[in-house]
Amino acid sequence: MNEYTFSGVAEALEVFDDMREKAVAIGHAMGVIYLDSVTCAPANTAAFRARTLGTMSGIEYDITTDPRAKAAIAWLVEHQEELDEQRRREVTEYDRANRFISSIPKDEYAAYSELIANAEAVWHKAKQENDFASFAPYLEQIFDCNRRFAGYYCPEKPAYDVLLDRYERGLTMEKADGFFASLRAEIVPLLSKVMAAPQVDDSFLDANYPVDKQRELSDYLMEVMGIDRSHCGIAESEHPFTINFGSDDVRITTHYHEDNVASSMYSVIHEGGHALYELGVGKEYERTFLSGGVSMGIHESQSRLFENLIGRSEEFIALIYPKLQELFPEQLKGVDAYAFYKAVNKVEPSLIRTEADELTYALHVLVRYELEKALIAGELAVKDLPAAWNAKYKEYLGVDVPDDTHGVLQDSHWSGGSVGYFPSYALGSAYGAQMIASLREDVDVSAAISGGDLSPIVNWLGERIYRHGCRYDPAWLIENCCGTDFDPSFFVSYLTGKFSAIYDIR
Amino acid sequence: MNEYTFSGVAEALEVFDDMREKAVAIGHAMGVIYLDSVTCAPANTAAFRARTLGTMSGIEYDITTDPRAKAAIAWLVEHQEELDEQRRREVTEYDRANRFISSIPKDEYAAYSELIANAEAVWHKAKQENDFASFAPYLEQIFDCNRRFAGYYCPEKPAYDVLLDRYERGLTMEKADGFFASLRAEIVPLLSKVMAAPQVDDSFLDANYPVDKQRELSDYLMEVMGIDRSHCGIAESEHPFTINFGSDDVRITTHYHEDNVASSMYSVIHEGGHALYELGVGKEYERTFLSGGVSMGIHESQSRLFENLIGRSEEFIALIYPKLQELFPEQLKGVDAYAFYKAVNKVEPSLIRTEADELTYALHVLVRYELEKALIAGELAVKDLPAAWNAKYKEYLGVDVPDDTHGVLQDSHWSGGSVGYFPSYALGSAYGAQMIASLREDVDVSAAISGGDLSPIVNWLGERIYRHGCRYDPAWLIENCCGTDFDPSFFVSYLTGKFSAIYDIR
Repeated sequence: MNEYTFSGVAEALEVFDDMREKAVAIGHAMGVIYLDSVTCAPANTAAFRARTLGTMSGIEYDITTDPRAKAAIAWLVEHQEELDEQRRREVTEYDRANRFISSIPKDEYAAYSELIANAEAVWHKAKQENDFASFAPYLEQIFDCNRRFAGYYCPEKPAYDVLLDRYERGLTMEKADGFFASLRAEIVPLLSKVMAAPQVDDSFLDANYPVDKQRELSDYLMEVMGIDRSHCGIAESEHPFTINFGSDDVRITTHYHEDNVASSMYSVIHEGGHALYELGVGKEYERTFLSGGVSMGIHESQSRLFENLIGRSEEFIALIYPKLQELFPEQLKGVDAYAFYKAVNKVEPSLIRTEADELTYALHVLVRYELEKALIAGELAVKDLPAAWNAKYKEYLGVDVPDDTHGVLQDSHWSGGSVGYFPSYALGSAYGAQMIASLREDVDVSAAISGGDLSPIVNWLGERIYRHGCRYDPAWLIENCCGTDFDPSFFVSYLTGKFSAIYDIR
Repeated sequence: MNEYTFSGVAEALEVFDDMREKAVAIGHAMGVIYLDSVTCAPANTAAFRARTLGTMSGIEYDITTDPRAKAAIAWLVEHQEELDEQRRREVTEYDRANRFISSIPKDEYAAYSELIANAEAVWHKAKQENDFASFAPYLEQIFDCNRRFAGYYCPEKPAYDVLLDRYERGLTMEKADGFFASLRAEIVPLLSKVMAAPQVDDSFLDANYPVDKQRELSDYLMEVMGIDRSHCGIAESEHPFTINFGSDDVRITTHYHEDNVASSMYSVIHEGGHALYELGVGKEYERTFLSGGVSMGIHESQSRLFENLIGRSEEFIALIYPKLQELFPEQLKGVDAYAFYKAVNKVEPSLIRTEADELTYALHVLVRYELEKALIAGELAVKDLPAAWNAKYKEYLGVDVPDDTHGVLQDSHWSGGSVGYFPSYALGSAYGAQMIASLREDVDVSAAISGGDLSPIVNWLGERIYRHGCRYDPAWLIENCCGTDFDPSFFVSYLTGKFSAIYDIR
């Protein structure tokens, strides 16, 4: 590093900014290629694209590991007291994100990259063929590597804490244990009461809903949410997702099923919540490493807040019901708004996380959390994982897992190397419930929804969450929003109140 | 250059290939960003994208002008006798093309890339709002840059000759003047005879043709042309075009007008001709600098051959007419195939190039050629361009231009930085007529079309044109196809024969 010297902050920042701008541009380009690949690209074009993405990654690696850029980052970290707060945050966060990777010996990282590249295909085949045994050796290595890498990065902390912190800054097993314990204590008994009550009718949701009318519904929903279409597009892909190139250019996708109107409807509202967050990030962070949402948990809080707390509320259904009836007069004949509301809130323990209702969703995540924790701690062996999975599904959800395809092999996360990621799905739901409770102190949420103007809600969230981008940690944002630390009891109260009413539980 | 030495061909080629792969990847990425920008991107996202494209151009510039890469190219050019023929062609062609870019100062090139990225949106708005004045400053800069860049590259040649040669190797103002003079000498008298004859009825083409049915027609036309949809997509954009990322991934676009079925129909056949060319380039050229079509003129020969010589033939209309009647039974009630054939060949001097008939098309190009020539020569100022445009349309086509939206603002080419491109449209038509005359010596073209199997035509062109990519110059390909040099008389004879018959001129 001695060959590079910097006369001061300005010179070091110039080098940093040049590297940053190139990294941002390449990230943008790779994002557009990805978006195209899942929305527009012809079927047999993957190999050519993969080669380009590989080469682009190499160019990005060269840019971000350029010796002068690395020296500038080290210099800036060392002189961080001379930086203003935004710059200090940006430089130290960037350095921190890089250090996890750079603390891994190069040959181990290369071997891991190859392992992951192979594991995806092996997992895919194993899932199709219900063959856990073929995937087990890969999964074993993935968990071994993640445990070891956590140790390289921070040997003094338990490995799973290091991994949790990668996806949700500040999250620890202690916090997650408390969170999941309180959910479990409340949701499991509530679920048995719900299951004992008469089931709601949702058969009309499976009628034939033409795709062109569903597309009109998507446009309408985005309009109701106040999403600026001049900065946010919608496309169609196999799995819905949100991608942002900057706060000026956000895209969501959905997937239409002719026999399931709720699927695309709620994916649009969910992704719309992600989009509002990205669209609201402050312009001062554009093309910096502080742009975009701060964490998976906060991101999910925004998407699930709109999907469930707003989108599955009685007021929201009442608001949009005239449009639904206009678009689908035959399909909804004789169905009133309240019946539709109950249908989209039907609770039914199931095998598949991505299809779970609002109440049971957290239990799916709980299963994964407990298993990951045990695997990383060495208390559970990969060979015993399917049996442990099935036992927990029986215990928490009351369902019998018929095979590993519909059990332990259902998610792609582990095969992609994401260990410690799942808890943020449930955390997001709980963050959202706490946020909306604070929001209600300032804004008449019911009146806003009923009146069809969500802007007071969006503006409140924008002020407290969106505009800050990656500038502050998740815990800071929650404190900023709610005036207190994270407290899962809001989520539990919300679920209890809502589903007791729908299922008429006293 | 002395600091870089190469032990031999292998070492220099390794450096060259590394640079090439990165340039190909960046070109691919920038192409996808462009495609997205005109097909999917929300309206107000241009500025962010422009910055990315500017930065990407800078990265590309750094890669292609890296001192070691430049030394390797210079070494290879110097030692070209040691290379095999394909490599020799690639290195020398690359060196030639690269010299154009590398003769431009880096900051000027980056500024130009950003200018172009912004100009596109400004042009689009200006066209919508008939506001030439808002676009004029951009256009002025674009012409200034092109004139200046031509001077950097080859100060001893007239700037417009340099620009013409970029799009059609070997083309000069002298040749183009001669070509256009001979077309003008024949087309103008033929046109007056046609205009004196009774006009054909094409009123049914303006009925209401629903877009979803037109989309079905596009799919059908691509199938008839034998386009492999697993490697070729279709999207919708303001101005139809073809883009190729490699011969494995080609995209065409079209634009649907509810009141004009012929517009999208012929844009799909036209772009489909471009696509067949790109899809047919030999795999040995994939991810090399010899991939893709060799020139705009040869490219247009393929698109216009399919659009006009095949797509507007009596046999082709007879072939597709059952499908047209199936899709549009009401709109085509009482219209037979021959009436449809005459309608899509109706000659009528008009305002819009892309909607011009086959006979007057070259006159639209002539206008643009003369204006570009005068602008680059400094004989015409951008502020005087609309008036000059309108005067030439009156003189050559006899039409009054009502506003700039239907005049000088109609085409996207100049806003995209393409100056010197237009003449190749007319050249392409003439190349195509000469090629199909040779094709008829080997293949019963009428029978192939009537039988609905165009593969003998596609294969013949594939063998003689497509598969060669950029391996040979346009003049070589014409000789390879036709056994003689380029001769515009084939085009004139074809037009005379066809339109004399349709308009019953003795």
